[in-house]
Amino acid sequence: MQDSAALAALRRKAETLRALHHGPEPLLLLNAWDAASARVVESLGFPAIATTSSGVANALGYADGERLSREEMLAAVARMVRAVAVPVTADLEAGYGAGTQAVVATVRAAVNAGAAGCNLEDARNGALLPLKAALARVQAARAAAEAAGVPLVINARTDAFHPGYFQGDACTEAVRRANAYREAGADCLFLPFVSDAATIGRLVKAVHGPVNILAGANTPPLAELKKLGVARVSVGGALARAALTAIRQVAEELQATGSFDFANRIISHAEMHALLTSKPH
Amino acid sequence: MQDSAALAALRRKAETLRALHHGPEPLLLLNAWDAASARVVESLGFPAIATTSSGVANALGYADGERLSREEMLAAVARMVRAVAVPVTADLEAGYGAGTQAVVATVRAAVNAGAAGCNLEDARNGALLPLKAALARVQAARAAAEAAGVPLVINARTDAFHPGYFQGDACTEAVRRANAYREAGADCLFLPFVSDAATIGRLVKAVHGPVNILAGANTPPLAELKKLGVARVSVGGALARAALTAIRQVAEELQATGSFDFANRIISHAEMHALLTSKPH
Repeated sequence: MQDSAALAALRRKAETLRALHHGPEPLLLLNAWDAASARVVESLGFPAIATTSSGVANALGYADGERLSREEMLAAVARMVRAVAVPVTADLEAGYGAGTQAVVATVRAAVNAGAAGCNLEDARNGALLPLKAALARVQAARAAAEAAGVPLVINARTDAFHPGYFQGDACTEAVRRANAYREAGADCLFLPFVSDAATIGRLVKAVHGPVNILAGANTPPLAELKKLGVARVSVGGALARAALTAIRQVAEELQATGSFDFANRIISHAEMHALLTSKPH
Repeated sequence: MQDSAALAALRRKAETLRALHHGPEPLLLLNAWDAASARVVESLGFPAIATTSSGVANALGYADGERLSREEMLAAVARMVRAVAVPVTADLEAGYGAGTQAVVATVRAAVNAGAAGCNLEDARNGALLPLKAALARVQAARAAAEAAGVPLVINARTDAFHPGYFQGDACTEAVRRANAYREAGADCLFLPFVSDAATIGRLVKAVHGPVNILAGANTPPLAELKKLGVARVSVGGALARAALTAIRQVAEELQATGSFDFANRIISHAEMHALLTSKPH
């Protein structure tokens, strides 16, 4: 449990995070996977940290998709929260259990870990949950956050666009679900696996709340997403995989040249030391 | 505790790792900091994984230098061991305690975590330990490994060259200590903070055992280190910091272009999934 001062601070962080969904610019989130990455992202001036469930899972030795336990995920979230001063929103996958009780336990644990926001998905085992069940889960998340005394920023994700998860018109289903989740207490609606500008524009118009787009290789540039009215842009596990790609680049350079010149082009030991001993609270 | 089959497998890994110090090429180690990085390094064909204590510490939210607990460090080592099939050698700093009992507890925990080798430093709190105390610690590490039934590859590090840790001729002191640690049961002698080729050559000649050099920005290229007779080359926390530097690069590209094109140039989600679900045992 959080003491009352910590709880008050967390309430303020949640309100700060919520306001970032309604600013003049889209909220751009470079998702972190551990404490070091979170602190580096914060040091670059980003006003909030989102976590990536795939990045956290991979770092701990698991493939993506709730193969790690709720406890492992929340312990990773807590480490990121401790490393930074800005609000942290935690990717909690589908809540680590099918029913509303699992969601309640996960949201409670997220608040205890110091998360100011969370993602909650509406698919399990390769298929969308029935809308009624998915709605009950969003309601349960909101109620659990309220009971914990924190206006948690709930980012409700629908996987209507996930290849193979839904048979039918994904756009219609995504809008139906997003609006239902908004009614049920979600603050933001996360619609991943959409990169077509026209579709994004249609979704933003039809959804009655801030829309989060997952940016990937084919996503329109940030300025176009802004024009389309996107409120929040995140990169999922891509930043974590960009970091792992540096390993390949170093190995290739070493193999090609035998030189350790890469060490001249990286964040120094002293910089990381300073970042991790000077949390700007 | 390890069961007898696991113990037999760990013995073989330790012998494999030991033999890599006596091959035709220097043993090149790209130090990993979590399970994902270990698995990526292994996938590139490296025959062993070394861990980086600073990288592990940073990932968990700590600055370098035994700020995290023995338990946290060994839990991270265990995650890396589980993620790969090749031998893992663990950077155990100065053993998480001053006396021989701390070293014994740390080596036991390393064997239980599945480490085939370890680094052990001879400095604490910014100064070299007296030689007698440092020697007793190497002997205690060897005895603890033998008691656990594993021919652990002990990489004894002397910090004689660490700026400010020793007043006097660092080269003479490093050789004296390295040879004493070798006599006490060390398999390899780690002499970081030396990048001058002539000095490296002198050290390799004077030390009666395999020498490990820490490669950094000013280190001679790999081919020259080989000519100088260096048996093992590792990069410490540099690879972890190269990975974190990718965050800056992505942020700068996004700021300059608004484009998410970086996602076209990275390890894919499917590749990471395959790596983490197909441990090549």
